[in-house]
Order: sequence, then C-alpha cells, then structure tokens
Amino acid sequence: MTPLFGKVALVGIGLIGSSIAINLRERGLASEIAIATRREGTLARARELGLGTSYHSDPIEAVKDADLVILCVPVGACGAVAQAIAPALKPGAVVTDVGSVKGSVVADMAPHLPAHVHFVPGHPIAGTEQSGPDAGFLELFENRWTILTPVEGTQAQATERLRALWEAMGAMVEVMSAEHHDLVLAIVSHVPHLIAYNIVGTAADLETVTQSEVIKFSASGFRDFTRIAASDPTMWRDIFLTNREAVLEMLARFSEDLASLQRAIRWGDGDALFELFTRTRSIRRSIVEAGQDTAEANFGRLPPRKDPWNEAGD
Amino acid sequence: MTPLFGKVALVGIGLIGSSIAINLRERGLASEIAIATRREGTLARARELGLGTSYHSDPIEAVKDADLVILCVPVGACGAVAQAIAPALKPGAVVTDVGSVKGSVVADMAPHLPAHVHFVPGHPIAGTEQSGPDAGFLELFENRWTILTPVEGTQAQATERLRALWEAMGAMVEVMSAEHHDLVLAIVSHVPHLIAYNIVGTAADLETVTQSEVIKFSASGFRDFTRIAASDPTMWRDIFLTNREAVLEMLARFSEDLASLQRAIRWGDGDALFELFTRTRSIRRSIVEAGQDTAEANFGRLPPRKDPWNEAGD
Repeated sequence: MTPLFGKVALVGIGLIGSSIAINLRERGLASEIAIATRREGTLARARELGLGTSYHSDPIEAVKDADLVILCVPVGACGAVAQAIAPALKPGAVVTDVGSVKGSVVADMAPHLPAHVHFVPGHPIAGTEQSGPDAGFLELFENRWTILTPVEGTQAQATERLRALWEAMGAMVEVMSAEHHDLVLAIVSHVPHLIAYNIVGTAADLETVTQSEVIKFSASGFRDFTRIAASDPTMWRDIFLTNREAVLEMLARFSEDLASLQRAIRWGDGDALFELFTRTRSIRRSIVEAGQDTAEANFGRLPPRKDPWNEAGD
Repeated sequence: MTPLFGKVALVGIGLIGSSIAINLRERGLASEIAIATRREGTLARARELGLGTSYHSDPIEAVKDADLVILCVPVGACGAVAQAIAPALKPGAVVTDVGSVKGSVVADMAPHLPAHVHFVPGHPIAGTEQSGPDAGFLELFENRWTILTPVEGTQAQATERLRALWEAMGAMVEVMSAEHHDLVLAIVSHVPHLIAYNIVGTAADLETVTQSEVIKFSASGFRDFTRIAASDPTMWRDIFLTNREAVLEMLARFSEDLASLQRAIRWGDGDALFELFTRTRSIRRSIVEAGQDTAEANFGRLPPRKDPWNEAGD
C-alpha cells in the first residue's frame, strides 16, 4: 500500500500507540514512524520491539517535519503535550489524539495549536485491560469503531485523510460532535468501568466474606468485573476527572434505576425483575449480531488451567 | 470408574442438569440416569441428546428407587418439587440441589423431606449465560468450586459421598453453612448480576444516546455487562427474591461506596480514584493466579467476525 502519510509521530507508546505503530509498519501506511515518550525504560522497550524508525525522549524532536502527529497519552496530559509541541509543528500537518474523552481534549489542546495545522480529535473504541508498549497488536482496531470529532472549521479533507488511515488499520469510522461522543462513552464505557471498580472495592472491604473467598468463588460473575477493574489507573482517573458532567449525569440515572430494582427486591416484585431481565437479554443478542462480541458461552474463554495450589493439596 | 451411585435422578435438565448428566454418562458415575422435566419439548430434546437412561414428565416416576436425587430447577421451584417427590423417595437416598441460594432452599425443602433420606444442599459455582439441555458440556465443573451446605444432623458419610461425586466431575468442594454461602454469593455473583442488568436497562432507556449507538460502541466495556445480563430471567428473578436479605445488605454497601466515588469525581479528587483503581488491579491478579480466570487480554476472546452490515455499506 502507498503510505497514506509521510512521517507520522506518535507521542506516547502504550497499548494504543504501539498498536498504531505495528499497523503503520506492517501495512506500510507511513514512510517514517517517530516515537516519543518521556519514560526512559518505555522508550528503550519500544526500540527493542522495533516499533518505530526513530526514538525521542523529547516530543518536539519527534513531531518535527511530521505530516501526522498522534497523541497517545492519558487525556489529562494532552494539553501540556500540545503546548510543548506547538512551535515545532509543520504547516499543514494533521494533529489528532486517541483519548477516551473529547470535550476536555479539545478545550485543553485547541488553544495551543497554531492555525496552520489541522486538528481532528479521535477515539478508537478498542482496548484491552493491558497497557504498555508490549500490549499492542495488529488486530486491535479490526472491526471496531473509531470516532472522529473535528472541531468547527476543520477542513473536510483533513478528516477524510484521517478516516482513510483508520480504515486502513481495519476500523470503521464515525464522525460526531465532541459533546455527543462524551455522552455516548459515559454510558457504554465510563460508567461501566466505574461500577466495576466500585464493586471490586466493595468486595475487598467486607468483613463478613474473606478476600480469599471472593477470589475462589469469583467465577460466578465477579471475575468479569475484575478484568475491567484491572484497567490502567492513570488513564481512568483522567477519564473521570475530564468527563465529569456526562459521567455524573449517567451515574445519576444508573443509581435511580438501581434504587427502583432494590425496591422491587425488597417488596418481592418478581414481575418487575423478570421484565427487566428479559429486556436486557435482547440487547446482548443485538451486540452479537452487530459483530461486536462473540456468541460463544463465557466469551469462548478457554477452561482455566488447573489450580496448582489445589493440586498440591490433592 | 465404579459407579459412585446406582440410580441417579435429575429433576430439571437445563444447563446444570444436562452438564451433570453428561458427566455421569461419560465418566460412568451412575448405573442409571433418570431425567424428569415438566416441559414436553425439553424432555424430548433430552431424549434426542441421549442424556439419560429413562425420561419422565412426572418427577415421582424418576425418583423411585433412586440412590441420589438432584434438583436442577430454579430455586423458587425447589419447595414444590420436594413436596411432590417426598412420598416416593427411597430410604437412605441422598437428596441435593444445585441452586444459587441455599438458605431459602433449605427452608423450602427440609419440611417436606422424610427423616429416612439424607439432605445435602449444594451449589456448583459454574455456569454460562446460556440455558437449556443443549447448553450442557462435560468440562463445566472442571476446576470450579462446588459448595455443600449440609444441615445440622446430616450424616458426614452422606456429605462425603456427594463430595466424591462432585470431585469425580472435576470440581473442588468446600463445605460451609447455608447463611455464609448466601452472603458470599451475594457479593461475588448476585449483586454483580444485578448491576449488570441495571446498567443495560439504563442504557436502553436513554433519550440522548440511541440504542444503535449503544450497540455499535459497546466494545468499550458495556458488552461484558450485556453477557451477564443475558442470563436466564426466571432463574435470576428467583435468586433475588430468595436471597433478599444478603443482596440488600451487599447492595447497600455497593451504593454507599458508589456515592463516595461519585463525590470524588464531583470534587475532582483524583488521588482517591487512583488509589481505588490501583487496589482493584491486584485482585484481578489474584484471581488469575488462583486459576479462576484466564490471563489473556479480553478473556482471550477471538477477534469478532466482520460486520455484515458494514460490509454491505463499503
């Protein structure tokens, strides 16, 4: 494939950054891949993995002459990075990011960016609970949606070039406003993560049930929540701090609905429970039909390995 | 293997019942397997699948001369079944169940059972979101815990025979009181299911985010919850109605903790969020180390199949 961009600079090389780097390299989508990250050890690891064509601890060095700059840092860091790299950005460059919140990223980055670059914020809806440059893989964006939220006045051509890049990495692309993005993500991602973190915390703090019991008997539902609650703490702290309004709004609705379920349980209203439990089943079916999850039982999880501790006890 | 029991009667042949039947048959753990279920179609399907050696629409027929009777019906139905089969139970028979709540099952069944049988309630902590006789498989109990909650005065020998059967099916066995079981399950299973059902319901009811957006962008966390929220509605209605006290207690703690998280978000207390998110990560690690879940990213889920709707639009 002809490279879609000449030089691409990746600032930050965690799960998303390294997956993009692998895609650029394997699919030949860029002629140069400059990688920047502050942490010495992470940069060395990226170099060992051969993720780029050049490696920089200063992002200013990486973005020089870049046709496309992708910020792959936690959303809370985007403003400072934009400020740092602004003077070095090449006229006509496309600048984007991969943050899970868009309103605050626009507010933090836009004031720093020169008028001669094209700013097209983006968010690939893809990830795993793992982080760091070793976590990346080629198929991460395959059949997943990437949302682009160009600000008013962005040239359509810049958005389309970025769309082409994401589609070349296997993603499907949708364009919407930053405000709407943040509302959608609050319900499909941010609040689910918050309640997963919360229940795992609640379970850890009980006096009546021991932590070892929680771990042993986790297979009955809880373990799914622990996977989500194992996501990167810095990234998720920033998400909740920056998408505060939408998260609090969705959380209020969740709590309202939960209070009503609690009441149904207290008063033995089996019909209300049954009605909800039937309705939620059909949403699962739609998600599987839309190709966004596997239909296999338990996500097609392999049977767990034999417990060594138990074997020792046999 | 020498059969551990002569004739085994299974009353109810859903996911758990059929998985037990397959284990008894494949591992030669019983000389006869009598299957009873009220529904005509389910019974016919069990026969087609060759799950038993005899098939009955009346449980009284099935339990006659049985050395072991296993109730595999929703917990709300256990009392009525116990009452129905009581007169036909063979002296010395072991009677057990597989229900997810133990206190109410003991309260509902014990008064009906004759003094000449051994009642050892049980609960295999294993399952998938699928139900019915086609959902069963041999490995379901492999490396999973089964909890037995013998009532006071139960002969230890009866409990040990049942333990041997579960271990022969690949399970690990723990004995505890019915009350403690219900508390443990409320936090590792019942409340997680309730909040999964709840968030899926909340998402479905929004006006600002469409159902199609929820489905498309579900990969960011929400889809995991929909799997849990696709579990059998009747079974789960019964669980919440019968384990009411423990569920309400755990739910109160969950809501308290959530309110405190909500406050941290509102006031921008990033340290509190970061502290919790770091702590929850280590619990995930313990669960993987205990062999209760896979360490693979995204549960080792296969990449989703290509979306046919999107292909048509390309």
